[in-house]
Amino acid sequence: MINVLFAARPERWDTYEAPLRTAFAKAGLDVTLSTDLPPAEVDYIVYAPNGPVTDFSPYTRTKGVLSLWAGVEKIVGNATLTQPLTRMVDEGLAEGMVEWVTGHVLRYHLDMDQDICRQDSEWQVHIPPLARHRKVGILGLGELGTACARALTALNFDVAGWSRSPKSVDSIACHHGAEGLEAVLGQSEILVLLLPATPATENTLNAQTLAKLPKGARVVNPGRGELIDDDALLAALNTGHIAHATLDVFRIEPLPTDHPYWAQPNVTVTPHIASETRPGTAAKVIAENIRRGEAGEPFLYLVDRAAGY
Amino acid sequence: MINVLFAARPERWDTYEAPLRTAFAKAGLDVTLSTDLPPAEVDYIVYAPNGPVTDFSPYTRTKGVLSLWAGVEKIVGNATLTQPLTRMVDEGLAEGMVEWVTGHVLRYHLDMDQDICRQDSEWQVHIPPLARHRKVGILGLGELGTACARALTALNFDVAGWSRSPKSVDSIACHHGAEGLEAVLGQSEILVLLLPATPATENTLNAQTLAKLPKGARVVNPGRGELIDDDALLAALNTGHIAHATLDVFRIEPLPTDHPYWAQPNVTVTPHIASETRPGTAAKVIAENIRRGEAGEPFLYLVDRAAGY
Repeated sequence: MINVLFAARPERWDTYEAPLRTAFAKAGLDVTLSTDLPPAEVDYIVYAPNGPVTDFSPYTRTKGVLSLWAGVEKIVGNATLTQPLTRMVDEGLAEGMVEWVTGHVLRYHLDMDQDICRQDSEWQVHIPPLARHRKVGILGLGELGTACARALTALNFDVAGWSRSPKSVDSIACHHGAEGLEAVLGQSEILVLLLPATPATENTLNAQTLAKLPKGARVVNPGRGELIDDDALLAALNTGHIAHATLDVFRIEPLPTDHPYWAQPNVTVTPHIASETRPGTAAKVIAENIRRGEAGEPFLYLVDRAAGY
Repeated sequence: MINVLFAARPERWDTYEAPLRTAFAKAGLDVTLSTDLPPAEVDYIVYAPNGPVTDFSPYTRTKGVLSLWAGVEKIVGNATLTQPLTRMVDEGLAEGMVEWVTGHVLRYHLDMDQDICRQDSEWQVHIPPLARHRKVGILGLGELGTACARALTALNFDVAGWSRSPKSVDSIACHHGAEGLEAVLGQSEILVLLLPATPATENTLNAQTLAKLPKGARVVNPGRGELIDDDALLAALNTGHIAHATLDVFRIEPLPTDHPYWAQPNVTVTPHIASETRPGTAAKVIAENIRRGEAGEPFLYLVDRAAGY
């Protein structure tokens, strides 16, 4: 019998209980799954932020803390967390992210808003260049950034990617480090932010880096709110140096009703929907990691605590 | 020396003269290209609608009429046209069409307008299903329909295609004939029209066929205005049976300012931009067909005069 504590907000339990039980049964795991177990008897914790567990020290026999979220910045700095931590890499999440990013990149590429928001009856022809002549930059070449880069390349976009440490992705120009960032920013007509939120990535987009983007660039942020210095972006949107931004993530969510992003005419706010972990596919990843833990095999998607993701 | 008459509207000459001369030179063709040649001395006509030539009978030695447009419905019925007619299959045109169709299908899939057009500051979470659970129908499986079907399938959309005569496209459920049309309409949450305009396809979308679509379906028409019975579509949009339509082509273009589509809140009008023939790539196709004509090889994209495309 394996004891699994579900430690997330109560409404998540309603969504996840059935998919988790199904996934455990399919994986042949004999699990007691509950939101209430004595800490000393818990083998695995299924974790999401804002749940009941903040002190991990009483969980003395726990072999793994399995996050339901892809981003682990809210937990990785918890000093009481000495157990292995895994983040969620959900097939559904990556697929949803690719769809959202590809959709908004195409929206900017085609200047769709011009037609969607038109109030008059004017036939104003605007022929976009072909995607092969449109330069897209992606900051962050993890699972999600790479999947988006591949989808955009398949649509012929001229994609350049950037990561802090060197990476290589087929048929995409990959850059890294400070010089690489400058190179990617300098050419990106549409810039997509898919970096993890770490102390090293905070305010990646600030007054200095925004100034490196070509005039009229568009910014898409489905990554993390902390990647952007909001005041600097608002200033660049006001001068028109940045023509438009579509932001899905924010330092505070829901975005407060009085936040200037709501009123900024050249900003589209989307309510953290770029990608949502889907219970059905996520439950399979949790079950697979418990199977691995029990078999003494390495966990999938183990967080590097030093790097922070 | 090969005499090529450029017969299109004067503004097209400005756009096409240089790319055509470049393409002829690259193909090693010794061409006299002009907008003004004695009909009896013309070897090939580069043609677009609304140009100076309406009577083809004086062009007694002309070996081919090479259309700059993909759609040839405005010329195919011309009784004086006895010379071989080719239509344009421009790589740039297909690419642009794929980008436009993929963009608008993703826009509907993600319910983007909800965020783009939001006037309040409400954080209203709307998580779309994954594309793999979104059914898209494509009517017309020619060059453009097939290219769009492939791109949407690559993004995991559940795509079904329909053509009048049986066709088969890898990894897409292909239907044909009257029964097949009913099957595709019945399941299409998003329907894309890419049929040619012929007497047989006129009003393919009418009161009867619109009623076959699931309630709340969205319609995307980058094909031809004649494919839709406009009054029937407006009625279905008014009842909400069709939730939204994005229309790029119309029976009269530019769409008259008093046309009800402009004022219909659940219609997006785009000004025939879904795909535009790009002079650089189109000129290469024209040059290749002249090379073929001179070498006695069969033309590319020869129009079947009986079928009308």
